[in-house]
Amino acid sequence: MARVVVNVALKPEILDPQGRAVAGALGRLGLSGVIDVRQGKQFIIDLDGELEGERTELMEKLAGELLSNPVIEDFTLTVEN
Amino acid sequence: MARVVVNVALKPEILDPQGRAVAGALGRLGLSGVIDVRQGKQFIIDLDGELEGERTELMEKLAGELLSNPVIEDFTLTVEN
Repeated sequence: MARVVVNVALKPEILDPQGRAVAGALGRLGLSGVIDVRQGKQFIIDLDGELEGERTELMEKLAGELLSNPVIEDFTLTVEN
Repeated sequence: MARVVVNVALKPEILDPQGRAVAGALGRLGLSGVIDVRQGKQFIIDLDGELEGERTELMEKLAGELLSNPVIEDFTLTVEN
Protein backbone atom coordinates (compact mmCIF):
# COMPACT_ATOMS: atom_id res chain seq x y z
CA MET A 1 0.00 0.00 0.00
CA ALA A 2 1.15 3.53 -0.73
CA ARG A 3 0.21 6.51 1.37
CA VAL A 4 0.25 9.89 -0.37
CA VAL A 5 0.14 13.04 1.75
CA VAL A 6 -0.77 16.24 -0.09
CA ASN A 7 -0.46 19.49 1.84
CA VAL A 8 -2.20 22.46 0.28
CA ALA A 9 -1.45 26.02 1.41
CA LEU A 10 -2.40 29.44 0.16
CA LYS A 11 0.40 31.10 -1.80
CA PRO A 12 2.40 33.49 0.41
CA GLU A 13 1.07 36.56 -1.40
CA ILE A 14 -2.58 35.56 -0.85
CA LEU A 15 -4.24 36.94 2.28
CA ASP A 16 -5.30 34.24 4.75
CA PRO A 17 -8.10 35.63 6.93
CA GLN A 18 -8.64 32.26 8.69
CA GLY A 19 -4.96 32.14 9.62
CA ARG A 20 -5.14 35.75 10.78
CA ALA A 21 -8.12 34.93 13.01
CA VAL A 22 -6.28 31.95 14.51
CA ALA A 23 -3.20 34.11 15.15
CA GLY A 24 -5.37 36.62 17.01
CA ALA A 25 -7.05 33.90 19.07
CA LEU A 26 -3.72 32.26 20.01
CA GLY A 27 -2.48 35.63 21.25
CA ARG A 28 -5.65 36.37 23.22
CA LEU A 29 -5.38 32.93 24.84
CA GLY A 30 -1.93 33.76 26.13
CA LEU A 31 0.53 32.50 23.51
CA SER A 32 3.18 35.17 23.14
CA GLY A 33 5.26 35.98 20.07
CA VAL A 34 2.90 34.78 17.33
CA ILE A 35 4.28 36.17 14.07
CA ASP A 36 2.04 34.51 11.52
CA VAL A 37 -0.40 31.63 11.07
CA ARG A 38 -1.34 30.06 7.76
CA GLN A 39 -4.17 27.56 7.51
CA GLY A 40 -4.08 24.91 4.82
CA LYS A 41 -5.53 21.54 3.95
CA GLN A 42 -4.07 18.07 4.21
CA PHE A 43 -5.20 15.07 2.18
CA ILE A 44 -4.10 11.58 3.22
CA ILE A 45 -4.65 9.22 0.33
CA ASP A 46 -4.24 5.45 0.67
CA LEU A 47 -3.64 3.61 -2.57
CA ASP A 48 -3.47 -0.06 -3.51
CA GLY A 49 0.05 -1.24 -4.37
CA GLU A 50 3.03 1.01 -4.93
CA LEU A 51 2.79 4.42 -6.53
CA GLU A 52 5.09 4.53 -9.54
CA GLY A 53 5.33 5.51 -13.19
CA GLU A 54 2.25 6.95 -14.88
CA ARG A 55 0.14 6.66 -11.73
CA THR A 56 2.61 8.98 -9.95
CA GLU A 57 2.33 11.50 -12.78
CA LEU A 58 -1.47 11.36 -12.63
CA MET A 59 -1.44 11.71 -8.83
CA GLU A 60 0.73 14.84 -9.13
CA LYS A 61 -1.49 16.28 -11.85
CA LEU A 62 -4.61 15.71 -9.75
CA ALA A 63 -2.96 17.21 -6.66
CA GLY A 64 -2.37 20.37 -8.68
CA GLU A 65 -5.77 20.52 -10.36
CA LEU A 66 -8.33 18.78 -8.15
CA LEU A 67 -6.92 18.99 -4.62
CA SER A 68 -5.57 22.52 -4.96
CA ASN A 69 -6.41 25.65 -6.90
CA PRO A 70 -3.24 26.58 -8.81
CA VAL A 71 -4.26 30.23 -9.00
CA ILE A 72 -4.09 30.79 -5.24
CA GLU A 73 -2.59 27.65 -3.69
CA ASP A 74 0.66 25.68 -3.63
CA PHE A 75 0.90 22.01 -2.78
CA THR A 76 3.52 19.55 -1.62
CA LEU A 77 3.18 15.84 -2.24
CA THR A 78 5.01 13.10 -0.37
CA VAL A 79 4.72 9.37 -0.99
CA GLU A 80 5.34 6.57 1.49
CA ASN A 81 5.45 3.34 -0.50
CA MET B 1 12.17 31.75 15.04
CA ALA B 2 10.22 28.57 15.69
CA ARG B 3 7.84 27.03 13.20
CA VAL B 4 5.07 24.87 14.61
CA VAL B 5 3.11 22.61 12.26
CA VAL B 6 -0.18 21.28 13.60
CA ASN B 7 -1.97 18.66 11.50
CA VAL B 8 -5.57 18.04 12.44
CA ALA B 9 -7.44 14.98 11.17
CA LEU B 10 -10.80 13.44 11.92
CA LYS B 11 -10.55 10.45 14.24
CA PRO B 12 -10.55 7.18 12.27
CA GLU B 13 -14.01 6.21 13.52
CA ILE B 14 -15.58 9.50 12.34
CA LEU B 15 -17.07 9.51 8.83
CA ASP B 16 -15.30 11.91 6.44
CA PRO B 17 -17.73 12.82 3.65
CA GLN B 18 -15.30 15.34 2.10
CA GLY B 19 -12.61 12.68 1.92
CA ARG B 20 -15.13 10.25 0.45
CA ALA B 21 -16.04 12.79 -2.24
CA VAL B 22 -12.37 13.35 -3.08
CA ALA B 23 -11.81 9.58 -3.28
CA GLY B 24 -14.69 9.30 -5.75
CA ALA B 25 -13.41 12.20 -7.85
CA LEU B 26 -9.85 10.81 -7.98
CA GLY B 27 -11.25 7.50 -9.24
CA ARG B 28 -13.46 9.14 -11.85
CA LEU B 29 -10.48 11.15 -13.10
CA GLY B 30 -8.55 7.96 -13.75
CA LEU B 31 -6.55 7.25 -10.59
CA SER B 32 -6.82 3.52 -9.94
CA GLY B 33 -6.64 1.74 -6.60
CA VAL B 34 -7.87 4.49 -4.29
CA ILE B 35 -8.61 2.82 -0.95
CA ASP B 36 -9.37 5.80 1.25
CA VAL B 37 -8.96 9.57 1.44
CA ARG B 38 -9.08 11.61 4.66
CA GLN B 39 -9.16 15.39 4.54
CA GLY B 40 -7.70 17.36 7.42
CA LYS B 41 -6.37 20.79 8.28
CA GLN B 42 -2.83 22.05 8.60
CA PHE B 43 -1.79 25.09 10.63
CA ILE B 44 1.68 26.57 10.12
CA ILE B 45 2.47 28.84 13.04
CA ASP B 46 5.55 31.06 13.10
CA LEU B 47 6.66 32.18 16.56
CA ASP B 48 9.25 34.62 17.81
CA GLY B 49 12.24 32.94 19.44
CA GLU B 50 12.46 29.29 20.39
CA LEU B 51 9.50 27.28 21.61
CA GLU B 52 10.34 25.77 24.99
CA GLY B 53 9.07 25.27 28.54
CA GLU B 54 5.67 26.66 29.43
CA ARG B 55 5.11 28.12 25.97
CA THR B 56 5.39 24.59 24.52
CA GLU B 57 2.82 23.32 27.02
CA LEU B 58 0.45 26.17 26.14
CA MET B 59 0.95 25.58 22.41
CA GLU B 60 0.05 21.90 22.86
CA LYS B 61 -2.99 22.77 24.95
CA LEU B 62 -4.22 25.26 22.34
CA ALA B 63 -3.62 22.76 19.52
CA GLY B 64 -5.92 20.35 21.34
CA GLU B 65 -8.60 22.87 22.30
CA LEU B 66 -8.58 25.74 19.78
CA LEU B 67 -7.12 24.25 16.60
CA SER B 68 -8.86 20.91 16.89
CA ASN B 69 -12.05 19.55 18.35
CA PRO B 70 -11.03 16.78 20.77
CA VAL B 71 -14.40 15.05 20.42
CA ILE B 72 -13.96 14.23 16.74
CA GLU B 73 -10.38 15.14 15.79
CA ASP B 74 -6.81 14.11 16.55
CA PHE B 75 -3.80 16.36 16.06
CA THR B 76 -0.07 16.02 15.65
CA LEU B 77 2.28 18.86 16.51
CA THR B 78 5.85 19.22 15.27
CA VAL B 79 8.24 22.03 16.14
CA GLU B 80 11.19 23.26 14.08
CA ASN B 81 13.23 25.53 16.31
